Amino acid sequence: MTTQNITLALASAAVSIRLADVPTPVLTIARQAVLDWFGVTVAGAGDPATEMLVGYLEHEGGQPHCGLIGRPGRLPASAAAALNGTASHALDYDDVNFSIPGHATAPVLAAALAVAEEVHATGPQLLEAFLAGYETSCRIGQLVAPNHYTRGFHATATLGCFGAAVASARLLGLDAEATARAMGIAATRAAGLKAAFGSSCKALQVGEAARGGLVAARLAQRGMDAPGDMLGHKLGFARTHSDDIAIHAALGAPRYVDDFAEATAQDAPVYGYHLENNLFKFHNSCYETHSAIECALHIVRGASFATADVAAIEIRVNPHCDDICNIASPATPLQARFSLRQTVAMALSGKSTADPLAFDADSVADLQLLELRELTRVVLDPALRVPETVVRIRLRDARTLEHRHDSSIPGADLGAQQARLVAKYKALCLAWMSASAVDALEQAVAQLEQVGDVGELARLTVVQRH
Amino acid sequence: MTTQNITLALASAAVSIRLADVPTPVLTIARQAVLDWFGVTVAGAGDPATEMLVGYLEHEGGQPHCGLIGRPGRLPASAAAALNGTASHALDYDDVNFSIPGHATAPVLAAALAVAEEVHATGPQLLEAFLAGYETSCRIGQLVAPNHYTRGFHATATLGCFGAAVASARLLGLDAEATARAMGIAATRAAGLKAAFGSSCKALQVGEAARGGLVAARLAQRGMDAPGDMLGHKLGFARTHSDDIAIHAALGAPRYVDDFAEATAQDAPVYGYHLENNLFKFHNSCYETHSAIECALHIVRGASFATADVAAIEIRVNPHCDDICNIASPATPLQARFSLRQTVAMALSGKSTADPLAFDADSVADLQLLELRELTRVVLDPALRVPETVVRIRLRDARTLEHRHDSSIPGADLGAQQARLVAKYKALCLAWMSASAVDALEQAVAQLEQVGDVGELARLTVVQRH
Repeated sequence: MTTQNITLALASAAVSIRLADVPTPVLTIARQAVLDWFGVTVAGAGDPATEMLVGYLEHEGGQPHCGLIGRPGRLPASAAAALNGTASHALDYDDVNFSIPGHATAPVLAAALAVAEEVHATGPQLLEAFLAGYETSCRIGQLVAPNHYTRGFHATATLGCFGAAVASARLLGLDAEATARAMGIAATRAAGLKAAFGSSCKALQVGEAARGGLVAARLAQRGMDAPGDMLGHKLGFARTHSDDIAIHAALGAPRYVDDFAEATAQDAPVYGYHLENNLFKFHNSCYETHSAIECALHIVRGASFATADVAAIEIRVNPHCDDICNIASPATPLQARFSLRQTVAMALSGKSTADPLAFDADSVADLQLLELRELTRVVLDPALRVPETVVRIRLRDARTLEHRHDSSIPGADLGAQQARLVAKYKALCLAWMSASAVDALEQAVAQLEQVGDVGELARLTVVQRH
Repeated sequence: MTTQNITLALASAAVSIRLADVPTPVLTIARQAVLDWFGVTVAGAGDPATEMLVGYLEHEGGQPHCGLIGRPGRLPASAAAALNGTASHALDYDDVNFSIPGHATAPVLAAALAVAEEVHATGPQLLEAFLAGYETSCRIGQLVAPNHYTRGFHATATLGCFGAAVASARLLGLDAEATARAMGIAATRAAGLKAAFGSSCKALQVGEAARGGLVAARLAQRGMDAPGDMLGHKLGFARTHSDDIAIHAALGAPRYVDDFAEATAQDAPVYGYHLENNLFKFHNSCYETHSAIECALHIVRGASFATADVAAIEIRVNPHCDDICNIASPATPLQARFSLRQTVAMALSGKSTADPLAFDADSVADLQLLELRELTRVVLDPALRVPETVVRIRLRDARTLEHRHDSSIPGADLGAQQARLVAKYKALCLAWMSASAVDALEQAVAQLEQVGDVGELARLTVVQRH
């Protein structure tokens, strides 16, 4: 038992983040995360899950405070957060942080952008709010790891709800005490199950996390209370949702923990940023398939063979992947994204795993891919850490090709990462937006610190879906 | 492990409920629950939690599909469900079922009434939907008892979300398969923590449960999918939210379980109704204080003494009550409702525990009550079952007065219960509504099977708050 108020300590840390103190590389990654979010959200805005939700939300209507990314029409902030949050995760192409483990940006930015647009916040205010929310989600991820996720909670959604609350609170100008109340209310809204993976409901969970956090902040602003420490309470979020509680990991390096015990907005300590470990997705499938895809691409680049030459494929992954991305015979494009066998088959066959449209009904039914899937064995190996993967291919001529990859190592060259992200962003957006709007949005995000009214960003993405 | 689809089995049972098959006493209790809900909701419509929420919801606005109980104005169904659900639990005066354990009616009826008003459902349709939702919440309560609640989940909200989804699905005419999908989506929205007890956030959880269930049904109607068995999945709601999974208890008497294994809407079995165990509250405090209050009232009626004669008070309860209603020194009227010491002190002093207005700042600060609180010892006794309670009073003249009560036994005389409920309903409503509207609503609920458009009920409660 601790007498420390974990919720207030994290709220104080979140309130103390100042853009002027943030190292340049972290700001670069933050802008990259914003650009990547717009790309995946524009592309996800036409996904069936998004369409179902927008139909209902427009039926209910409301004040046109916020734009819908990649769509016409405007809705109240809570509805926009739910919709844009759902769209941003609909393709499961948004960035990842293993401290969650899951997608840290999507729910936080969906909520932050909606609040920012409604209150006419500036670019710097949006960046600060995003950072505060992102870091808070990851810190709570550290608090409840690993049992929270292994138990079955969809941490992207459960923890994203807290990050969304904190980002919204920042944009509303709440102090540490009110931010802690917003987090407390969010603790009663945080929900989401991994059992929904492979269904349209997975993306909804992210949208609802954004909405839940935003509403929590709005209610905290109006005075709603939640008892002292909803995270650390003996019946609070951590103990109800995990067997593990790692307070030191959550609050920063151990040497800072004593400071945190009495933390206020004034004297919260400085520490590293979880954002530095942000991982962008360059394949439009579950993140735990990426190492396998990179292995397959490496093997294809390094040897000359046809798919007809393949005798057997072995994909060796941590057992954790079994619950997540081991759908043996995917029946839908969505399931294909959670199939190690299918994604490796696509990579070996020269089919793009970066283009969302490549995951279509044809690819699921493709007989050549089916044959490769049937030649594949997935081996669960506890000696591998997530998402480290070994792919071994045995050819009919008895050659064996093998490669090992770990996609959890962030890109060290931020310039190269930027170029790859811009290419991804453009490919995703150009299907829906004009070239001039795509360029204008890219420029605005690149110079986010100079944007005077964040609403401009959303307005650039307004398109008629076709 | 079971191969049975628990979600579909419960959905099939819920879809199969027909008013014509429901025994008359169960229908009487259902109408009593509806009347009681209107009373507590009208009275709770002016509570600070409700005011904070309505301010935000009206800021966002939307289509005026549904009335707000006890308030002016109209909002979309999801907002009305959230608001009316919050109001219905704001005073913590709504009815209880120990199969949850918690409040089964509030979230289900808040959702059902909103959907019913929007689709212009009839009284019988509302009753059927309410029954289906109520029974489903209780059955899932049985599925995850006891660890779900003892672990710290606010079962009223978590399980109420499923009941709200099922009631909404019935009113939308969804079949068993679509109802199961609505339940699956609800499984990803179900949230709520006991750590929020004693704060305005507790009532919000009930409103959000109503909203979450309603939205789940609306999205299921639009085709959103959730994987096969979100309740029974190895990472589903039951296993993430409880260490206990009692499938037989959830699906009915053991002799029916074999039928359930292949249950469809056509052949779902018949069983008793959880509604027969519904417990109405006649004191405006936490249900676990009621036995203690009844003991105190019995002791006062049976002996002649003044409060100044009291030397010591002992309240003996199950240890379970320690987390719920053992606030030793309540600082607010809300906390007073969760204080065994305060409620017993009020009963001994002749102060009403039935009138919500009796729990005011004056009563918290009352020196006479403070003295009685300080003479009180709460003893946690595992030998007592919840909410069985023994109150023992030692007087200065050495007399010892003792009484034992168990408020978990439902009223056997439904006529007497009706009279007591009508008195409670009138006392709650007459502070806000005209006498003629109070009478008209009472009559409409008494003849609910004859009501052609349920929207009439909500419209009768429209009042200007003063």
